[in-house]
Amino acid sequence: MRLINATIATLDGNSPYGLIENGTVVIDQQAISWVGPEAELPTEFAEHEQTDLGGRLVTPAFIDCHTHIVHGGHRAVEFEMRLEGASYEEVARAGGGIVSTMRSTRAATVDELVTSALPRVDTLLAEGISMIEIKSGYGLDVNTELAMLRAGRAISTLRPLRVKTSFLGAHSLPPEYKDRADDYLEEICLPALTQAHAESLVDAVDGFCEGIAFTPEQIKRVFDHAKSLGLPVKLHAEQLSHLGGTALAAEYGALSADHLEYANDNDAKLMAAAGTVAVVLPGAFYTLRETQKPPIDSFRKHGVPIALATDSNPGSSPVTSLLLTMNMACTLFRMTPAEALAGATRNAAKALGVTDSGVIRTGLRADLAVWDVNHPAELAYRVGFNPLHQRIFGGACTV
Amino acid sequence: MRLINATIATLDGNSPYGLIENGTVVIDQQAISWVGPEAELPTEFAEHEQTDLGGRLVTPAFIDCHTHIVHGGHRAVEFEMRLEGASYEEVARAGGGIVSTMRSTRAATVDELVTSALPRVDTLLAEGISMIEIKSGYGLDVNTELAMLRAGRAISTLRPLRVKTSFLGAHSLPPEYKDRADDYLEEICLPALTQAHAESLVDAVDGFCEGIAFTPEQIKRVFDHAKSLGLPVKLHAEQLSHLGGTALAAEYGALSADHLEYANDNDAKLMAAAGTVAVVLPGAFYTLRETQKPPIDSFRKHGVPIALATDSNPGSSPVTSLLLTMNMACTLFRMTPAEALAGATRNAAKALGVTDSGVIRTGLRADLAVWDVNHPAELAYRVGFNPLHQRIFGGACTV
Repeated sequence: MRLINATIATLDGNSPYGLIENGTVVIDQQAISWVGPEAELPTEFAEHEQTDLGGRLVTPAFIDCHTHIVHGGHRAVEFEMRLEGASYEEVARAGGGIVSTMRSTRAATVDELVTSALPRVDTLLAEGISMIEIKSGYGLDVNTELAMLRAGRAISTLRPLRVKTSFLGAHSLPPEYKDRADDYLEEICLPALTQAHAESLVDAVDGFCEGIAFTPEQIKRVFDHAKSLGLPVKLHAEQLSHLGGTALAAEYGALSADHLEYANDNDAKLMAAAGTVAVVLPGAFYTLRETQKPPIDSFRKHGVPIALATDSNPGSSPVTSLLLTMNMACTLFRMTPAEALAGATRNAAKALGVTDSGVIRTGLRADLAVWDVNHPAELAYRVGFNPLHQRIFGGACTV
Repeated sequence: MRLINATIATLDGNSPYGLIENGTVVIDQQAISWVGPEAELPTEFAEHEQTDLGGRLVTPAFIDCHTHIVHGGHRAVEFEMRLEGASYEEVARAGGGIVSTMRSTRAATVDELVTSALPRVDTLLAEGISMIEIKSGYGLDVNTELAMLRAGRAISTLRPLRVKTSFLGAHSLPPEYKDRADDYLEEICLPALTQAHAESLVDAVDGFCEGIAFTPEQIKRVFDHAKSLGLPVKLHAEQLSHLGGTALAAEYGALSADHLEYANDNDAKLMAAAGTVAVVLPGAFYTLRETQKPPIDSFRKHGVPIALATDSNPGSSPVTSLLLTMNMACTLFRMTPAEALAGATRNAAKALGVTDSGVIRTGLRADLAVWDVNHPAELAYRVGFNPLHQRIFGGACTV
């Protein structure tokens, strides 16, 4: 296949979009055989069947590198209660908060988890996404943590997309371990990780380092166990306060540190040195009406790659649009449209340790999105609009 | 047609959603013949062909009561320039701002205006919208103001939806009338209104009362002319400052006053007395990073109906999702999900002076939306997710 008459944002090289006007992409089987200006097409590709894109924009397919998209239930009633003036205690008494999602998730079968997640996954696919990260973390018991990861793996067999799973047993403390976080780690979290790894259900290990979750010392135990299993780590860090999670993540060479509203310039420096990606999650910032912004300027200054993700979850970010997330990154965090696009492609791949996708380059997978827009800035500019023309996944047109 | 096994948010009566569990809606031709609990269905409707909705939620079809969805061009490049640090002057020198949209709109034919608007209109239709208000206001010369209204009328013939047009000649001052606002009104705005009305292109007359647009005295001239033609009025009021537009709108018995960030409690009192609807536009609030919120509590206290709209426009609100607008109304303005749903249905109808749609009631048009959700709060809770199952427009299933 040869896509001609395309405006190509390769996201490769040093210019903001890596833009090629009047470009061509040649695809053989699953991979990109050639990309460049039409006028420079090597003669060996001249016979490939061509598709005229009429000047449309081609980008790498999107990657959503931080989601909790597999979960039971929803929290719309709690959302409503809060807006009607219910106090935190009233919501908790009515069974709200993360515990309600834990209960719904524990009550669901793997099939039910998959079925309930698919409409959300399909919404992302319709925006040209080729890869989704899916976390456990609402089971908080061994069986349900494994069930969530199985659901994540199952989704990648039911839809044309790739899934990266993250074990997030250290997400929250279940009520049965109230005030016994260390026991929870010892008895549930670490054994669940061992077992999930043994069943090849885990691609990376995540944690939530926060006053309402786990201390850096506790996260250290989880990371040490991950390292002993040869698994990469990542961390929810400095979302609500500065506890030092980012420094810890950098110390362990984490793939990414995520949220980061309360991270500082020194954290950015440590991340840059460790090669840790900053994953910012404007959907959660928006939903929580946070006012403290992640230190985007520090990330820029120290050269920390910035990725974006939906954080799709039932509580603090019921978001299923990466396009909208790009707009929020610009509007709320003052990122540029070019940074937003890199955040949803090149840097999202980096945050998942993925090297075969995320940019348009000869030899990489042909995971592409074709858009009905003239200028790449349009992707981040619009709010609640999806201009996807076609999604190409591993060389196949699937949407 | 008889829809059975439905959860029906009628938006009728005094309860927040006017909810009927296990409900039935009977539709004959274009209209609702009966709505109520299934158990109370009169025998005369028992033979109507039935569709089992499996418990799905039925609401009135949505109404977007404030849009500038017809316009030439887009402003993505300007959006990008600003985020890259360009000053207001640099953007203006590069041809940005409302003048750039005026130029693109003037350069377009009616057909081109329709063609460029349709993807945005279709995005709204896919969210269960049955009626869109469309304003002129980017022509600022007689011919183009009329062309925009013609495009609005044309859209209603090309898609299964109803369009209400608003003449917004008093939107901005074109460069050729710099510092000569009164001349612009005399020579362009009022004659254009007369001509547009003569061609039956105008359903209501709008204006922008603001320091960067027109004074209350100038708006008064436009409103007086509207009244002389027998046309209802509405106003963009107190968006960026308090100039007294809302009081003026109330004085003229306006259908609605819109934006209203800087309106006060007394304005709300005047609106209530005049029966003027408050149209709040969280998409513009969000895009402009405004911090002053419209006085929702005052609207509640005085019983002013609150409507929501996308404000879909290329500069300050490139928004094409009324579902997202509902979420923003909750998240940013602390409206409740029930208020948000009333804002997109019942009160939006009221803002357009429409009495045959916006609630589910015997005798009204069968403009309905069927949603894949269990609880009406889910509509406002999710961010970037469209759970529409079916749109029913004048009794016909069209999406």
